[in-house]
Amino acid sequence: MSKRVFNFGAGPCTLPLSALEEAQQEFTNYMDSGMSVIELSHRGKEYDQTHTEAMALAKEIFGAPEDFEVMFIQGGASMQFSMIPMNLLADGEKAAYIDCGAWSGKALKDATYYGDAYAAWSGKDEKYTRMPKNSEIKLQPNTRYLHITTNETIGGIRTIEWPEVDVPLVADMSSDFMTRPIPWEKFDIVYGGAQKNLGPAGMAVVFIRKSILDKTNKNIGGYLRFDIQCKKESLYNTPPVFAIYMMGKVLKWMKSLGGLKEIEKRADEKAAVVYEAIDGSNGYYNCPVAKENRSVMNIVFRLPTEELEAKLIKEATAAGFIGLKGHRDVGGCRASCYNAMSMEGVQALKAFMGKFHQENPA
Amino acid sequence: MSKRVFNFGAGPCTLPLSALEEAQQEFTNYMDSGMSVIELSHRGKEYDQTHTEAMALAKEIFGAPEDFEVMFIQGGASMQFSMIPMNLLADGEKAAYIDCGAWSGKALKDATYYGDAYAAWSGKDEKYTRMPKNSEIKLQPNTRYLHITTNETIGGIRTIEWPEVDVPLVADMSSDFMTRPIPWEKFDIVYGGAQKNLGPAGMAVVFIRKSILDKTNKNIGGYLRFDIQCKKESLYNTPPVFAIYMMGKVLKWMKSLGGLKEIEKRADEKAAVVYEAIDGSNGYYNCPVAKENRSVMNIVFRLPTEELEAKLIKEATAAGFIGLKGHRDVGGCRASCYNAMSMEGVQALKAFMGKFHQENPA
Repeated sequence: MSKRVFNFGAGPCTLPLSALEEAQQEFTNYMDSGMSVIELSHRGKEYDQTHTEAMALAKEIFGAPEDFEVMFIQGGASMQFSMIPMNLLADGEKAAYIDCGAWSGKALKDATYYGDAYAAWSGKDEKYTRMPKNSEIKLQPNTRYLHITTNETIGGIRTIEWPEVDVPLVADMSSDFMTRPIPWEKFDIVYGGAQKNLGPAGMAVVFIRKSILDKTNKNIGGYLRFDIQCKKESLYNTPPVFAIYMMGKVLKWMKSLGGLKEIEKRADEKAAVVYEAIDGSNGYYNCPVAKENRSVMNIVFRLPTEELEAKLIKEATAAGFIGLKGHRDVGGCRASCYNAMSMEGVQALKAFMGKFHQENPA
Repeated sequence: MSKRVFNFGAGPCTLPLSALEEAQQEFTNYMDSGMSVIELSHRGKEYDQTHTEAMALAKEIFGAPEDFEVMFIQGGASMQFSMIPMNLLADGEKAAYIDCGAWSGKALKDATYYGDAYAAWSGKDEKYTRMPKNSEIKLQPNTRYLHITTNETIGGIRTIEWPEVDVPLVADMSSDFMTRPIPWEKFDIVYGGAQKNLGPAGMAVVFIRKSILDKTNKNIGGYLRFDIQCKKESLYNTPPVFAIYMMGKVLKWMKSLGGLKEIEKRADEKAAVVYEAIDGSNGYYNCPVAKENRSVMNIVFRLPTEELEAKLIKEATAAGFIGLKGHRDVGGCRASCYNAMSMEGVQALKAFMGKFHQENPA
């Protein structure tokens, strides 16, 4: 390693260095097979062990109950925006969506092609700066599920109050996947792209309640069917071998830290450091989202002017803090602090922000 | 490298060692970014260059005309079995399929969920041992496209005569992708899983005629739309970064060898060595497929008894020849000789087969 930057990118993003170094070391000869992991047959014993371990670890670390299975499906969360309504909605059933930002908006739009989908609440008029209270969620009759986005990567807000509704929840957790325990009894599906907290880009990780598989749609292509993907244990066709292999290493690292409880504690502590830098700046740095819904993964903030924002991003990059530019749709700055971001990284960022403020008064 | 086996697996499969070693060397610090390639933002300058180069090289090496674009779409060829009819078939249009083996059968079945799909020829009664002659292909009125599978990985047969029909061709080339020039003017779509000749598992490479995109279906989810994937240059959402990166390295290696012409020559020469081992064995080894349709990628053969087949596979594995077991649906043996298999590998296999015959007479 000649150098290593602090990568605050929103995904793909920083991964545990130990996992990367392990992969590097064995890259041309995995498990003494005389082959790279990416050359292995997905039906062979070396890959079988890798695949099975990754599935088991994902369920163990996230605390998924017996009735849930995990699937690795290519196409990211965006593909799930289609697969979920396509598989779940029967004739006459509706799908409810909490419209809380860019990603939930896309999920809702895609669902309209596969059934009667509607917004059970929308934060659009408030510029997506908060999540709804339970009393604000309005469900229509014959609703099959309520889709929530537990953390909006662009807006920097997260769900705190789990919806109290009488239909199952389906949750896109792409940007806060496996960062806190969840009330599994409320969910039929919990999914997310792997490329933030779990590993490289190239698949969604989808937890599904097995007892709903009897009723999912069978009149769609094989790859798109949840019942087939589940029954075949994500080996219906050639899986994204490398992504699953790397995720296995990241999951092992998460387990070695102490699992979900420790991950959650660290996430809260790291976020607190960055929010301190913001809140302690007398308004120089400003986080536009409701305090109770502040994301602990994607911390958005503005500076007094767009010029100062551009200057901060430029100087931060030069100083080794990468990926601080806010999403192009909203501007500003964003520090994404996924699981593999270190306390050292956020403390260094806080110090940098303090120094920048001093050197560049409003 | 402590050892390196000869990997005759049907996919994922052997890849160029030089590409693997290059990836290994830079795995924790790509382009001096201080990050692994799998940690890079897919919107950043390092990945942008990697992505653009891979797209350009794929088109250049395969000789795709100006009117074609290449897309990298997750889900492998199996996902294309749904996406193609879903995007291409308008009301009242039919889809014709050449039913020449396991994979084309799956493609045809999935198409029936998205329109009126039928077999324009079937090799089922002949146990999928040959491809059709042009005169045998029967199209129905209002056929939008004829789908062909240019090489059946399991059956070990390939197309020699390109169909002469008055509808566009759509070709699944998963197992002989970029191994010979093709008559582009006949095609609307040419696709295949990447995990054989091109790189790791985790995506399909899809060449599409741009002028058909105006008419593709717009009433499906965003990820599944060809027009969106094409317009967004395979960056509609986070792409499978590592698979594209590795494919770029494999494509560079293919170019350094001399491109498609040299690849084709090598493929023919390598296949000839294995078929010599079969044909020169006085019937001890037997290839069940029609001689003119013999695959140069997946060479299937039987021995006098299943016991001898099992013995050969076991002894071959111990001697460092991996992946020679035929597909579980058909049994027997199969030597897959993809682009990265060396002449040294097939010659060593030929010698091994000769010795095994001597030591284990029928």
